Amino acid sequence: MPTIRDVARASRVSVATVSRVFNDHSRVSETTRERVVAAANRLGYWPNGTARSLITNRTHALGVLLPDLHGEFFSEVIRGIDLAARSHRLHLMVSSFTASPEDLTSVLRAVRGRIDGLIVMTPDVDASEALRQGAGAIPTVLLNPEVQVAGCDSISIANIDGAQAMVQHLISLGHRRIATVTGPKGNIDAHQRLEGYRAALREAGIEVDPTLEAQGNFTESSGYEAAALLLKRRPRPTAIFVANDHMAVGVLGALQDASIKIPGDLAVAAFDDIPMARFLTPPLTTVHVDMLALGQRAVQLLTGPRPIQGPRREVLPTTLVVRASCGSAPPSKAAAKTRWERRHAVAPGTRGGLGT
Amino acid sequence: MPTIRDVARASRVSVATVSRVFNDHSRVSETTRERVVAAANRLGYWPNGTARSLITNRTHALGVLLPDLHGEFFSEVIRGIDLAARSHRLHLMVSSFTASPEDLTSVLRAVRGRIDGLIVMTPDVDASEALRQGAGAIPTVLLNPEVQVAGCDSISIANIDGAQAMVQHLISLGHRRIATVTGPKGNIDAHQRLEGYRAALREAGIEVDPTLEAQGNFTESSGYEAAALLLKRRPRPTAIFVANDHMAVGVLGALQDASIKIPGDLAVAAFDDIPMARFLTPPLTTVHVDMLALGQRAVQLLTGPRPIQGPRREVLPTTLVVRASCGSAPPSKAAAKTRWERRHAVAPGTRGGLGT
Repeated sequence: MPTIRDVARASRVSVATVSRVFNDHSRVSETTRERVVAAANRLGYWPNGTARSLITNRTHALGVLLPDLHGEFFSEVIRGIDLAARSHRLHLMVSSFTASPEDLTSVLRAVRGRIDGLIVMTPDVDASEALRQGAGAIPTVLLNPEVQVAGCDSISIANIDGAQAMVQHLISLGHRRIATVTGPKGNIDAHQRLEGYRAALREAGIEVDPTLEAQGNFTESSGYEAAALLLKRRPRPTAIFVANDHMAVGVLGALQDASIKIPGDLAVAAFDDIPMARFLTPPLTTVHVDMLALGQRAVQLLTGPRPIQGPRREVLPTTLVVRASCGSAPPSKAAAKTRWERRHAVAPGTRGGLGT
Repeated sequence: MPTIRDVARASRVSVATVSRVFNDHSRVSETTRERVVAAANRLGYWPNGTARSLITNRTHALGVLLPDLHGEFFSEVIRGIDLAARSHRLHLMVSSFTASPEDLTSVLRAVRGRIDGLIVMTPDVDASEALRQGAGAIPTVLLNPEVQVAGCDSISIANIDGAQAMVQHLISLGHRRIATVTGPKGNIDAHQRLEGYRAALREAGIEVDPTLEAQGNFTESSGYEAAALLLKRRPRPTAIFVANDHMAVGVLGALQDASIKIPGDLAVAAFDDIPMARFLTPPLTTVHVDMLALGQRAVQLLTGPRPIQGPRREVLPTTLVVRASCGSAPPSKAAAKTRWERRHAVAPGTRGGLGT
């Protein structure tokens, strides 16, 4: 790893000057600053907490690397990134990569030199090393709390809290036999949502039953198949917590095919709150993730003022959105609301923006 | 507009040589070819039918411009483009633009010089001039049949045929009072789907009734609101043809809220066949568009061998997918199928690939 001394030598200034450049002191001339930043970029030097300062707007492009481009979740995140990027006159270079670190390395190689900053959503913890080597001096925001790359800010979703709160809600409605459909193995969001599900059960003194955990892969059809499997369990579960809305669409389809009433016979709750969740039959109770805000905040971290201290680790809060699919009878006050209003209801305690 | 003579002068070769370069004759040396292509690029010269030959793979990036990044339709198209681009070691530079031609011009300016080719889905016919000026010599494939830019290949969806076949299907089921929810004004796909709807009615001797055409904007909530409006019409329509699946999700929600049985009281049919259409309640009868193939084909046109003749105008065929929402009783043979198989059924006559 290059040190501050290497950068000082390469840019023919003192270590103190390099330090001043990366701490935004005004006593450095623009010419010197540019020379130091260029040398740091070239060497791959990565000072703590200076990710933002490296946005030099030379290429006017932001790289966005996602594991998949399919589905409403990613399209909302990309839309949020795009909205914020446009206000900074930055264009997007969106690319997907498969799960392998080799593929990530190859994509990173392709975008180097053409982007001012990078937003990477990698569900795979093994990506750390590929990112460390491949991203080099490109300022990067990671959308994964467990991939640790020195100097990179990160934003994550409050998956554990959200899943735990949702399963607590199901328990509060009287459910004890609660199944779950999980996301793909090795995916951090899926892993944390499962963790939250288990934590809520344990906390309520309900034994975690592995036969009630059906494997999915975040697609509708995997949700359909997982639900078909869970319906064979005896005694049959009375509620299913599904790790994302896309799979929940498949679960609703499977229950409909089995002539099981929702929520009368079986309650369904999910995660994400994609735009169509409120319009499903029945409207889907789900954990709301502000995907647009997630994308926008990532751009803010890349383009905004840099803190003196080290990289930021932010957590996007989630909120419960209670609709008809989990069978909570609307309180008497809410009953006066139109059905349209109930579809659009958000549970109390909704918070906007991001906490840390 | 620069002529072949201008290119010949600028690259210091004869007009015959320029002609040979753009007709792929082998008697031109690689050095000469490169010089001629560079001059043509610089001048913005655009020979007929040579879009593909200009893919020089200098930047290893493809630009993708879409009017919106929201929803399953666009994410599937982008996924198709990405899949095909990766097999050519091309990366994507995805950007969205608002409806205004000025915005398109600004985005085009930003990507020039950084991409080898361009795929533009613009629903707006007014975009022609912006594209003509802005895209310059960048090889371009247009995903809009009515935007005419010299030398550009185009792919369009068989919107009129698809909509017409779907409304014919509703008529064959006995419906006479068929409403429609349209896409946004000025959008070519929306316009053509409305045209197909009207054509089917006229053909069957049913008067086109403007009060049965409710305006939507391709989002779930606009579908909800349009359906609420159509339910007030007297006599009430017995079927609704919705111009895309996202709006149909909102229509299904509105009918559910109004306690209207689908398809018993009202049949619903839509357009696109997004991945979740088959899992909706009830499973959605819709016109299948192979969005993945659309994206992949656009990349093939940019990277494949060039024809001697002028630009290609291809039409992506559509197929009817009959599921439960429009109430056609499955034929006796199909009744033996499992519900899973019925959800996944595709009407006979499905065609893969693209026709011209």
